[in-house]
Amino acid sequence: MVVDGINYQSIWVDEEDPTVVRVIDQLRLPFFFEIKKLSSVDDIYNAIRNMTVRGAPLIGAAGAFGVYLAALDSVRYKDPLPRIENAALYLISCRPTAVNLAWAVNYTLDSLGGKGESLPEKALKSALEICEIEKENCLRIGNYGLALIKSASKKKNGAAVNILTHCNAGWLACIDYGTALSSVYFAHDAGIPVHVWVDETRPRNQGARLTAWELENASVPYTLITDNAGGHLMQHGMVDLVIVGCDRATRSGDVANKIGTYLKALAANDNKIPFYSAFPSSSFDFEISNGIREIPVEERDPEEVTTVSGISGGEMTSVRICPENSTAANFGFDVTPAKYITGLITERGICRPLEKDIKEMFSDKFI
Amino acid sequence: MVVDGINYQSIWVDEEDPTVVRVIDQLRLPFFFEIKKLSSVDDIYNAIRNMTVRGAPLIGAAGAFGVYLAALDSVRYKDPLPRIENAALYLISCRPTAVNLAWAVNYTLDSLGGKGESLPEKALKSALEICEIEKENCLRIGNYGLALIKSASKKKNGAAVNILTHCNAGWLACIDYGTALSSVYFAHDAGIPVHVWVDETRPRNQGARLTAWELENASVPYTLITDNAGGHLMQHGMVDLVIVGCDRATRSGDVANKIGTYLKALAANDNKIPFYSAFPSSSFDFEISNGIREIPVEERDPEEVTTVSGISGGEMTSVRICPENSTAANFGFDVTPAKYITGLITERGICRPLEKDIKEMFSDKFI
Repeated sequence: MVVDGINYQSIWVDEEDPTVVRVIDQLRLPFFFEIKKLSSVDDIYNAIRNMTVRGAPLIGAAGAFGVYLAALDSVRYKDPLPRIENAALYLISCRPTAVNLAWAVNYTLDSLGGKGESLPEKALKSALEICEIEKENCLRIGNYGLALIKSASKKKNGAAVNILTHCNAGWLACIDYGTALSSVYFAHDAGIPVHVWVDETRPRNQGARLTAWELENASVPYTLITDNAGGHLMQHGMVDLVIVGCDRATRSGDVANKIGTYLKALAANDNKIPFYSAFPSSSFDFEISNGIREIPVEERDPEEVTTVSGISGGEMTSVRICPENSTAANFGFDVTPAKYITGLITERGICRPLEKDIKEMFSDKFI
Repeated sequence: MVVDGINYQSIWVDEEDPTVVRVIDQLRLPFFFEIKKLSSVDDIYNAIRNMTVRGAPLIGAAGAFGVYLAALDSVRYKDPLPRIENAALYLISCRPTAVNLAWAVNYTLDSLGGKGESLPEKALKSALEICEIEKENCLRIGNYGLALIKSASKKKNGAAVNILTHCNAGWLACIDYGTALSSVYFAHDAGIPVHVWVDETRPRNQGARLTAWELENASVPYTLITDNAGGHLMQHGMVDLVIVGCDRATRSGDVANKIGTYLKALAANDNKIPFYSAFPSSSFDFEISNGIREIPVEERDPEEVTTVSGISGGEMTSVRICPENSTAANFGFDVTPAKYITGLITERGICRPLEKDIKEMFSDKFI
């Protein structure tokens, strides 16, 4: 995506120093656009953990680059592979909900076998391959989503299609383009009037900070709202379509996504508004079918709830919003049962959230 | 309610200077406990408008005291009554959703007719009467709610009853005791183990700031959560009961309350968790039956969405949480359709949200 005239991905290898991975620092957006260097497995781990990089596809790619950095570091030892495998386990343990992380780390690990290139060369090739796969996936997802928006636009007589989204499933969450937002960008580029309702997405405000920044940067009309507002908008005909991302989907079509997604799905269902989840097949966990029971939901630092960070007087500042001694709980995700989802937008097309449909579309990956 | 050993209401007339109304400054809580003087109709208007005082019963009482201050000011004129009536209209226009404001202002205005005491004396008597009525209402509501909590407690084998609430419907929102929270206090005082999930309630964070402060002050166990979290908690059996307040209820049992309430009602319904709205009959608007179509929903300053205020380094600070040029929308309330409400907890008992049941319970007030 273009920022200030330069084309960026959310993660890449430094052109001058290929032992360094570079990412857009998502902790500083939208106030500051800064690039951060990641030079070790620990750097990658911390960047994923503290959400310098976040979003299921991107943390997958970051994990893959982590294996690459582990390989670079391990070649000086006699038996590097166990070291790389340990690093891989460490990286996977970093965040539990998005299945992309384990998928991408294992994909890169699997590429290290056999003869030929060095371990770092193989790992780098694999990590870059993951980036290309996910970019291609997002392109395809965007085009399938575009068809939905086009079709919604036909009923609007030239008025904008109002799309509600939660959290950030844009290019920052992926390598490029985005999952939920790629279709919005493609519609906007195709001249279809669109307007996005952006949930702020407490506690980390990825909506207010990242989605709003992405849409602003791409000149797509949007309105920031609190997470509480979507139901009211839907009751009053102000939402035509809901599109969100996904951190892990089950073989039966349940979708874990940023906490609060489930509430929007309930409201969409109550008001007969189509609700879609857009994601690459790397977010599928074909081994499980009951999302509520089987998907591990990350619990994060309660301080993310008791404080809010933003900008004041040109500097990033954190304010406490409750009594000093308040106890808080911070669940990172919730699970939307398949019955509340209209369709899953994947790189192979849109399918109903039904085990038989998912099995048909992903027969080669289904277990 | 007792704060630092002193018994407070949320509004009262200054003991030494009866031309001054005093309130707890809710814009400064939970960081600072400060009392504010309101000496004119404009003071009252601004205090309601900027939410120094808020909560349906309290803004009703504040409006009534506004009529009293208008009467005090108007007696120096030859024909004071039209002036007081104008002030009343002005006060009613201040916030559109909670019907208590119009009810209380008109109640006080109606008391001014006939002979006997002076206009200020009559108005003051009426405003104080409203305070006593609402306190008595909250006491009764609390006792009816207590019965619900007692009954829920029987199934918990000594574990705490987990109650989720949204916004602040405690004593700060009323004159004393609270609507949704009075039953929590009564249960706690009766030795029934309770634990409250406190929605932070963006954009103004009345949950994080006021409900958390009230519960902390009363030593009731609670956990602060984001507005996004309730659905997940309900899916996992962590909520036994939802009790919220109300800004306006229709004759058919639809309930307008702080934005986001509807989403919690949907989740409670989806997970078969009882969902109650607690309010005095002054919050009923017996003239309307379709809440979504007929209740005016206040739109407030978008800056309440684009910024968050809290405390940093001992001082109250406001931070912007989104790009500088973000457009935002700020709807203050939403309407929960009666079909998602288990019962209405009123001063006359708990009734189903059905027109015939409401009519039976409030036959003297029903139109």
